[in-house]
Amino acid sequence: MKNIGFLDACRNAIGTAHVLTDDTDKAAYLTDQRQRYTGQALAIVKPADTAEVAAIVKLCNTFHIPIVPQGGNTGLVLGSVPDQSGQAIVLSLKRLNRIRAVDALNHTITVEAGCILQHAQEAAAAEQRLLPLSLAAEGSCTIGGNLSTNAGGTAVLRYGNTRELCLGLEVVTAQGDILHGLRGLRKDNTGYDLRDLFIGAEGTLGIITAAVLKIFPRPQVQLTALAAVQTPADALRLLSLAQQRCGATLTGFELMSDLCLQLVAKHFPQLPFPFPERHPQYVLMELSDSELAPHASTLLEAVIGEALEQGVCQDAVLATSTAQSRALWQLRESISSAQAKEGKNIKHDVSLPISRIAEFIAVTDALLQQHFPGCRNVTFGHLGDGNLHYNVSPPLGVGEEQFIARQAEINRVVHDSVDSMGGSISAEHGLGALKREEILRYKSPVEMALMRTIKQALDPLNLMNPGKVI
Amino acid sequence: MKNIGFLDACRNAIGTAHVLTDDTDKAAYLTDQRQRYTGQALAIVKPADTAEVAAIVKLCNTFHIPIVPQGGNTGLVLGSVPDQSGQAIVLSLKRLNRIRAVDALNHTITVEAGCILQHAQEAAAAEQRLLPLSLAAEGSCTIGGNLSTNAGGTAVLRYGNTRELCLGLEVVTAQGDILHGLRGLRKDNTGYDLRDLFIGAEGTLGIITAAVLKIFPRPQVQLTALAAVQTPADALRLLSLAQQRCGATLTGFELMSDLCLQLVAKHFPQLPFPFPERHPQYVLMELSDSELAPHASTLLEAVIGEALEQGVCQDAVLATSTAQSRALWQLRESISSAQAKEGKNIKHDVSLPISRIAEFIAVTDALLQQHFPGCRNVTFGHLGDGNLHYNVSPPLGVGEEQFIARQAEINRVVHDSVDSMGGSISAEHGLGALKREEILRYKSPVEMALMRTIKQALDPLNLMNPGKVI
Repeated sequence: MKNIGFLDACRNAIGTAHVLTDDTDKAAYLTDQRQRYTGQALAIVKPADTAEVAAIVKLCNTFHIPIVPQGGNTGLVLGSVPDQSGQAIVLSLKRLNRIRAVDALNHTITVEAGCILQHAQEAAAAEQRLLPLSLAAEGSCTIGGNLSTNAGGTAVLRYGNTRELCLGLEVVTAQGDILHGLRGLRKDNTGYDLRDLFIGAEGTLGIITAAVLKIFPRPQVQLTALAAVQTPADALRLLSLAQQRCGATLTGFELMSDLCLQLVAKHFPQLPFPFPERHPQYVLMELSDSELAPHASTLLEAVIGEALEQGVCQDAVLATSTAQSRALWQLRESISSAQAKEGKNIKHDVSLPISRIAEFIAVTDALLQQHFPGCRNVTFGHLGDGNLHYNVSPPLGVGEEQFIARQAEINRVVHDSVDSMGGSISAEHGLGALKREEILRYKSPVEMALMRTIKQALDPLNLMNPGKVI
Repeated sequence: MKNIGFLDACRNAIGTAHVLTDDTDKAAYLTDQRQRYTGQALAIVKPADTAEVAAIVKLCNTFHIPIVPQGGNTGLVLGSVPDQSGQAIVLSLKRLNRIRAVDALNHTITVEAGCILQHAQEAAAAEQRLLPLSLAAEGSCTIGGNLSTNAGGTAVLRYGNTRELCLGLEVVTAQGDILHGLRGLRKDNTGYDLRDLFIGAEGTLGIITAAVLKIFPRPQVQLTALAAVQTPADALRLLSLAQQRCGATLTGFELMSDLCLQLVAKHFPQLPFPFPERHPQYVLMELSDSELAPHASTLLEAVIGEALEQGVCQDAVLATSTAQSRALWQLRESISSAQAKEGKNIKHDVSLPISRIAEFIAVTDALLQQHFPGCRNVTFGHLGDGNLHYNVSPPLGVGEEQFIARQAEINRVVHDSVDSMGGSISAEHGLGALKREEILRYKSPVEMALMRTIKQALDPLNLMNPGKVI
């Protein structure tokens, strides 16, 4: 009866058509991106604007209904799907999808939570501006999800995570009040940083409904090079050299092991491998330049030339056109798919102090070989940010189910190694429900207690995305 | 008796020599930087390290003694001096002044709260790195104070505020627990952003004892130009052009009205005025380049050339040496002193969306002339960040006491104007005790309630810097 009263009240608030209770209608919102988990929900509720979000949250307070906020549902840690209880609603932000303003002179865009990232990128581009946030899911993920998970991606080296791109937020609190914080200011020191508390909280403290994001002058040119190196340590030397020579013009620096590109060659034979022979590691570098193309070419050639001379890299190809640049990026972006085609594997999204990356790879590779002889490391990632996708595929000839059964053990080896070197077990994916228990092993009791104090203070009824993060 | 027990316990914890109770010894810690206010304290307590800070805070919890954390005591909003009650201790962080580590490859420096900013800059420079945080007080302000006020300064345009420079924090909580968060990671999404909650909280939620800060490759060259422009709107056109052409190479963009430089000329006649005639406004631009000097010169000349051609600026001088660059910066940096020599004045540290700066100046200047005919606007600031030091001097011939008596009225006109255009009444100085009441007029009840909820949750005894911020 309680639930019927609640659903009727929701229908009154936002219209019957936007409160989905039919199982067929609900299904699309209940399963996670990787199709590993399907939850249950009382209803999918789709408000049209911030006032309607606030009205729904107030009803949830009255009826004590838990809320799972959801954007594009592209997350990788089970942060945006409900649990099995069927007690919660999924609150979809998809209808809050407007670009509210682009202020080219202030270099800001004001955008609603349900706006797809790519649409926001396009709105910025139409004003000759760059919204630099860029990640694989950009065609379907939403700004609200990007903010709630503090998304990373390929341009963090130059522009920072989503947190660094956000100047102001509009939020519906756990009590259903609206926090109007859509300020487009570079400097504002007037009290506690509420903005950054909601960013990265994965919807457990309130619901982000809109944001003011930084945009930048569009670079005149982007150029990439692929460099072949012997070791991760040499890749780091190349990074240091490129940072020294190129400053903020260096916008991408990705590491890939040879096995990564072997898998790409096997499963995507149409993508040409650009070197006459194989090398142990490869680095994809990107420059984004506000000057004309010849300047960027000269700079990139100089860095590569210096690296070759110093023996830091063994070979390199420089893209001389946008099409060639795209082809090099495609190698990088095909690794995950290639690994998936190869079979099930165990993924880790870790970060480390950049100065310890080489040591981490050497030590952890060796530990895994001790525990699981023959397992195959498919290591790649955003080296410039210290962020590795340290994935592990089963030994050749070992059944994938047999391997996946030992996932907890493998996670333990990798995450303990990360922790021993001052790293993080979730660099850019968040905790969600997937790593909520795992983090207890690595965060101090003092830090966990502070997080629980904040959760309790801001959401005393524990209605906001329960079972996630904390 | 209670206080004597407390002081004895402090002496036991950190040594008698570091608990100052003599009035003469205490005096240096009780008056604010601008000498406007002198408070009272039970004692000045000077722990040597983080463990001692934690021990003192635990004693304060036991005895219910309020704590005023203090670094260099260079703040401008009465945030680091105690009130008149004499009940609080001043907890000076000055002895926590070590550089704990410089990791050149990770581009990080780990530094204690009491370290003077300039010493941290020097430690980075010794490793060929740049700690870009730079402000007038850098020779005496401390890293802990910079973090607690989220200090801004002259390089925010390129590198962000202190918040953006910080990767990890060590904090002593209001309960005297130590939060070990000295992570040097570019990406870490494992729960709530406690770091940014303590940054900018002005010591009201806990005590920052150390931090990991980002450092950068040292630029090869820094070049400046001074451009004469007609209006703030033209200065904004020049900003847009320079951002488009120079990207992240543009590291400084300061606006000064002619009256600013007239006052400098009057009170510092030894500083040469670089143009043959006067202009209404001036812009100081700085480029920091990872390439060699000729590249930066060419770029700066091209931007200025284009601006002259478009009529965006009327004249310009380009520094061709570091000495000339310093001389141009000296004009900018002498404005505050020149205005002080001219007599008392009313200062505002405001920020606005950059696109509304010109409108703000025009509208607010006119409003002030209506209220106080003849008052003199000494407007300058970090235009690239939308941050103006919108200062007002009395009309010529009006006594300064008569003028200062109307300060509240003038603040009201300026701050209401700022608020009406989506700005902030404290861009980089914080709230302290000075603007704690004023902010209630401009922050929404929802935002204030959230701030109070957080304060109550993290510091339920209200011991941390009471009477500041909130």
